[in-house]
Amino acid sequence: MAQVGRGIPRLEARSKVTGRAEYTHNLRLPGMLYAKVFRSTVPHGRIVRIDTSAAAALPGVERVVTGEDIRKVIPEPYYGPAFHDQPILALDKVRHVGEPVAAVVAADPHVAEQAVQLIEAEYEELPAVYDEVEAMTSQAIVHEVLKPAGTFADLKHLAGKTGTNVALDFHLTRGDTDKAFAGADHVFEHTFRSQQALHLAFEPFVAVAEPGDGMVTVHTSNQTPSFVRMEIARLLGWQENQVRVKVPLLGGGFGAKVYVKLEPLVVALALIVRRPVKVALTMEEQFYMITKHPTTFRIKSGVTKDGKITARECEVHWNGGAYADIGPRVCQKSGFTAPGPYDIDHIKIDSYELYTNRTPCGALRGFGIPQLVWAYECHTDIIARELGIDPVEMRRKNILREGRPQATGTKMKDAAIEQVLDALAEQMPWSKPFDRGTGVIRRGRGIAIGFKASISPTTSVAIVNVSADGSASLNMATTDMGQGSDTIMAQIVAEVLDIQAEHVRVMHTDTDITPYDMGTLGSRSTFHMGHAVRLAAEDAKAKLAALAAEAGLPPGTNYPPSEIFVKRYGMRAGNVIGSGTYIPTYQSPDKTTGMSENVTPFWMIGGTGAEIEVDTETGKVRVTRLVNVADCGTPINPRIATTQLSGGATMALGFTLFEDMVLDGGQVTNASLADYKIPGMHDIPPMYNELVDAKQSNGPFGAKGLGESATFGVSPAIANALDDAVGIRLTDLPMTPEAVLRALRAKEGRPLEDDA
Amino acid sequence: MAQVGRGIPRLEARSKVTGRAEYTHNLRLPGMLYAKVFRSTVPHGRIVRIDTSAAAALPGVERVVTGEDIRKVIPEPYYGPAFHDQPILALDKVRHVGEPVAAVVAADPHVAEQAVQLIEAEYEELPAVYDEVEAMTSQAIVHEVLKPAGTFADLKHLAGKTGTNVALDFHLTRGDTDKAFAGADHVFEHTFRSQQALHLAFEPFVAVAEPGDGMVTVHTSNQTPSFVRMEIARLLGWQENQVRVKVPLLGGGFGAKVYVKLEPLVVALALIVRRPVKVALTMEEQFYMITKHPTTFRIKSGVTKDGKITARECEVHWNGGAYADIGPRVCQKSGFTAPGPYDIDHIKIDSYELYTNRTPCGALRGFGIPQLVWAYECHTDIIARELGIDPVEMRRKNILREGRPQATGTKMKDAAIEQVLDALAEQMPWSKPFDRGTGVIRRGRGIAIGFKASISPTTSVAIVNVSADGSASLNMATTDMGQGSDTIMAQIVAEVLDIQAEHVRVMHTDTDITPYDMGTLGSRSTFHMGHAVRLAAEDAKAKLAALAAEAGLPPGTNYPPSEIFVKRYGMRAGNVIGSGTYIPTYQSPDKTTGMSENVTPFWMIGGTGAEIEVDTETGKVRVTRLVNVADCGTPINPRIATTQLSGGATMALGFTLFEDMVLDGGQVTNASLADYKIPGMHDIPPMYNELVDAKQSNGPFGAKGLGESATFGVSPAIANALDDAVGIRLTDLPMTPEAVLRALRAKEGRPLEDDA
Repeated sequence: MAQVGRGIPRLEARSKVTGRAEYTHNLRLPGMLYAKVFRSTVPHGRIVRIDTSAAAALPGVERVVTGEDIRKVIPEPYYGPAFHDQPILALDKVRHVGEPVAAVVAADPHVAEQAVQLIEAEYEELPAVYDEVEAMTSQAIVHEVLKPAGTFADLKHLAGKTGTNVALDFHLTRGDTDKAFAGADHVFEHTFRSQQALHLAFEPFVAVAEPGDGMVTVHTSNQTPSFVRMEIARLLGWQENQVRVKVPLLGGGFGAKVYVKLEPLVVALALIVRRPVKVALTMEEQFYMITKHPTTFRIKSGVTKDGKITARECEVHWNGGAYADIGPRVCQKSGFTAPGPYDIDHIKIDSYELYTNRTPCGALRGFGIPQLVWAYECHTDIIARELGIDPVEMRRKNILREGRPQATGTKMKDAAIEQVLDALAEQMPWSKPFDRGTGVIRRGRGIAIGFKASISPTTSVAIVNVSADGSASLNMATTDMGQGSDTIMAQIVAEVLDIQAEHVRVMHTDTDITPYDMGTLGSRSTFHMGHAVRLAAEDAKAKLAALAAEAGLPPGTNYPPSEIFVKRYGMRAGNVIGSGTYIPTYQSPDKTTGMSENVTPFWMIGGTGAEIEVDTETGKVRVTRLVNVADCGTPINPRIATTQLSGGATMALGFTLFEDMVLDGGQVTNASLADYKIPGMHDIPPMYNELVDAKQSNGPFGAKGLGESATFGVSPAIANALDDAVGIRLTDLPMTPEAVLRALRAKEGRPLEDDA
Repeated sequence: MAQVGRGIPRLEARSKVTGRAEYTHNLRLPGMLYAKVFRSTVPHGRIVRIDTSAAAALPGVERVVTGEDIRKVIPEPYYGPAFHDQPILALDKVRHVGEPVAAVVAADPHVAEQAVQLIEAEYEELPAVYDEVEAMTSQAIVHEVLKPAGTFADLKHLAGKTGTNVALDFHLTRGDTDKAFAGADHVFEHTFRSQQALHLAFEPFVAVAEPGDGMVTVHTSNQTPSFVRMEIARLLGWQENQVRVKVPLLGGGFGAKVYVKLEPLVVALALIVRRPVKVALTMEEQFYMITKHPTTFRIKSGVTKDGKITARECEVHWNGGAYADIGPRVCQKSGFTAPGPYDIDHIKIDSYELYTNRTPCGALRGFGIPQLVWAYECHTDIIARELGIDPVEMRRKNILREGRPQATGTKMKDAAIEQVLDALAEQMPWSKPFDRGTGVIRRGRGIAIGFKASISPTTSVAIVNVSADGSASLNMATTDMGQGSDTIMAQIVAEVLDIQAEHVRVMHTDTDITPYDMGTLGSRSTFHMGHAVRLAAEDAKAKLAALAAEAGLPPGTNYPPSEIFVKRYGMRAGNVIGSGTYIPTYQSPDKTTGMSENVTPFWMIGGTGAEIEVDTETGKVRVTRLVNVADCGTPINPRIATTQLSGGATMALGFTLFEDMVLDGGQVTNASLADYKIPGMHDIPPMYNELVDAKQSNGPFGAKGLGESATFGVSPAIANALDDAVGIRLTDLPMTPEAVLRALRAKEGRPLEDDA
């Protein structure tokens, strides 16, 4: 029976609801200590002194550690996946409020917390900058010298640059936009902005480091175990096999838990005190770890009178916060899709990653694409409305079709953009007459469509192990954070080996044996690790066939593995170990033009349709229907895939209507779930979710990634629906009731401030 | 630099002395409960009733479990590697004092212990039998019906047999012994006996079972993880991949911890209470778990006047105790070497495994060989002395040489018996005049030589994993119990991959990924797993070469792996997974004649020379020099190999002079280390250890097993020295001062009992 395509429940579902599921938080090790973090209270300043004496004197405190202490075990304690700019504990300067400055280690976490309160630090404050556009020219320089990781050829030119907040800039030029603008019937230009927000996985950041003999074990809630291993080894100057990374299930990741976060700190602490150390952050501390890039995107289009876009200019400023993390790659790898899924001859993209004195910004579900789609789908919709063209027809007229070149020059393949558009239109349904209302409550509808490339090139390796009774186990570094990866990978193994998916044992990561994977991010796993898993299972299958031949069994018959093993070894004995490595073909974009003929192995396509109600007295927007459509090729597990649509859309809804990290003088004023509202049960609208009937021809069993696709179009679809309902156009996120009301009143000439 | 042949310290040495080494005893799991065992006080009886009510009522007791409760999670709760005869908790009958009858589970182990004291059991006692020869004909039948495991073709004929205590019998006939005896110049016949003794590893038995969702994890101090996995899966009726077995370092094994011991019990308890359960036995409880077979070996030789042995008849009765464990295989697989390493044309072997009402007997370092050598080397020495032939020359005249057929017909190959004999003679030195003394203290010397076949056929599988920086890790189910297997296997990997052995990471067993191995027993690992590891490393090496070719690197150059990975994947990424499986060629012995042309892939040879002092007033024997010589081919690590000689000899010394489990009416009267003396620091004689310069041509890098070789000849060498010193011949072990004195006085006609 085919295993791929079955909508089976997640394999770990029962263990999760019975409380048996393994999470890093549950880990208790003999002699384990807890550490709490002392954080900067200023957004930018030189460290004058840190007085830890009172903290160290508190009974029960094992050790108080500062950046200088860290240097004793890690001489060059700067980490990061793109730049080696982030100190484990602050050295010389602090660059954002909340930056870790010291850590207290104690057997009782409450004692550690108390001791943190006793630490005193003095800073010589420096001018700070918070806005991404301002940061381009500001005198407030966050990093005196740029420190790109030496391993990346394409970042080498940045090494040693001084006096700038531009960590990385990406440029793409195709055709001649100036000339095209000059010759266009219409030119439209708008600027859109998005806010700083965060992931808030149900399981906050947590990691435990256990010192061994000439090695260290790190237990962590992390999406990229192989990177953790490599980065910790690099920091310590050790071999990779001296670092053992163990990752059980994650209580959510969403991109927060990629690369390294707490791991360098717990490892350093464990090596200093020579005992296991655990650091588990509170919900409030999440606001100081990693967030979503605020953006300012100036977008300009040249259009014929019929609505054909002939040129598009994109200037994107990405606010990366105080440390690079993976921000530069957001700017670069998402940046090249800034014009949207449109067939445009003349394109100019200038994408800038800026340092500012905010909490660092990195990967958050969508990896920058939602911010881009926010801009280009609002902009494209405005154009449609101003030209009197139906929004759906406007998209249809301009979308990229099979074989046409995307901005980079890569020809589109297996990107079901039109199908997604058609499905949106059909499911709204767009053709039905829509009553916008006349009273206090007005109604509107809007659509938006976006796309994303898969990060490339990346490598994935998997092991499939068949035991003497024929039962199989899978070992891979893809981490299940609720997206169902364990389950779909088991289905792939089961498909190849012709067994039941529920009978495949999926082992969680232990890098002593779990082979390399680039990471569980960017919706890459189904495609990349899916291929590696398929190859590993095929390798195991081939080895079973070879074993049957060795055993003298006549070829061509499907012997049960248990029979093959007994025949070959004289008893139930033996194992077959299959392994598979997958890397797609790829061509690096040209350094100057940004062009590439093979920039990604697959495109993700996501579209949203929204129907809303607006209360014109309060400004409150209520989504009454949300249609989420995506192209994920042929899903491995349609049931799980569909939940990725509703989950992604719900997350994006929060960023659209509620969530915003509010800064005042660099302080995050709402660093608490009491003040920072995330979607609750009452906020979830009726949703219709559809995966279009498509096939990714180079994908494993026709499948490709999906995890982020439903996040692309939610914000602009709702903004477009708002425009449709009440004729106001918001260009900033979130679209709070206050923002809506302010815009309504401005339109009426009755400023909000005039209210008594 | 060559890695094989380096005498490097054990890789885990530092972690052991700093207390960081991982042992099952240290494991604490959230919610873990402890279980203590209630044991039979009678040697043989029907269970009339078990009253657990008082125990269950004790505050803090989670559950009290009996054999009937076990049936609810394991319907057929009988286990064992050869017979499925051993119940997890007693059902219907008890068959030895100390047999587990019930278990108490509590959060506090002291509460559990208290509750055990409150359990009452009533038995209808049955006639019992303790002696192996008596058991042949006794009316006291231990098992009403024989229950061989169905998976073994050669045991099938035993299934369902009733009314016998003979679990298995092995017979070998070559030539015509009766005729040869009739024609011999001299015929000698003696009977030798050995005692029940036990392993007493420093780390007592301990196991923890953790129930999961549709799976169970077993953490255990065990030498055969793959078997644990298979046996637990069989008992539960589950697939192998639903059972996860994790084994860290062992604090000694010596054969005690093979197959299953505590694991079925902890698994059953964990599934009943649905929480992790740990069972850790006390030192005293070791006496009721598993022991060494007592034996009675009647040996008869026909000899020419010049001392050539022309015929040998061996009748061996093995006392297997109340449950089979691996006893039947001791009887069978060691049984065929009963005539000794001698070139004898006419051979008859009858080897019987008997059930009795003692603690079960199984594998103890030597696997029955020491008991056989005890008999044949005393016997052969007596013959030499009676014929006036020098003991060394007697051996030299009769030993098997290259190409000659052993008892089974298998031609000897790479068995350096003569070299070992020569080394013994040289190191005593045998040629020097020896002063036996005239006073109260007399001196004597003796030699003995023995051999063992490697259990066959068996299968081993290993995985070698090379990371993107070139560092390597090894995954195999061979367990390091202090014999240095981690270290020598790392040396083999390092030799093949041309890296430093100290840089290879050896991962401990996790059967989710660790492939099958028959077991860490019988000195098989260096040879069998050594080959599998070599093959796995060679597979990894070949894959690296293929990767280099894929990367377009010109062939023929030795590229560092890190360079190959970067070239192929564009960054530091990827893994190479090598795997190897090894099974030697083999021919099963004929069912009737016991003949085989290929009964073992290698022979272990061990010889001992002893010089002793005897105090003729007290009977105390003091070993003044012990020469331990073995053939282990070309050792992978000479330093570790040498410690296997001194360690094995020390263990055998205990069995020779001190250790004896004393029974009275079936009760073990000295079940305590206060009363059962094991060798201490003061008992260790000056030792000279030598590995002869040899090569096992079919071994990995010329090596073969060694762990048991120094145990073979200690007892007979000392008995021969005693005969040499004072002319008394002890035929029973141990040779306590009392036994020596009794024999001395008997010789003088002054019975010990006459002393006031």
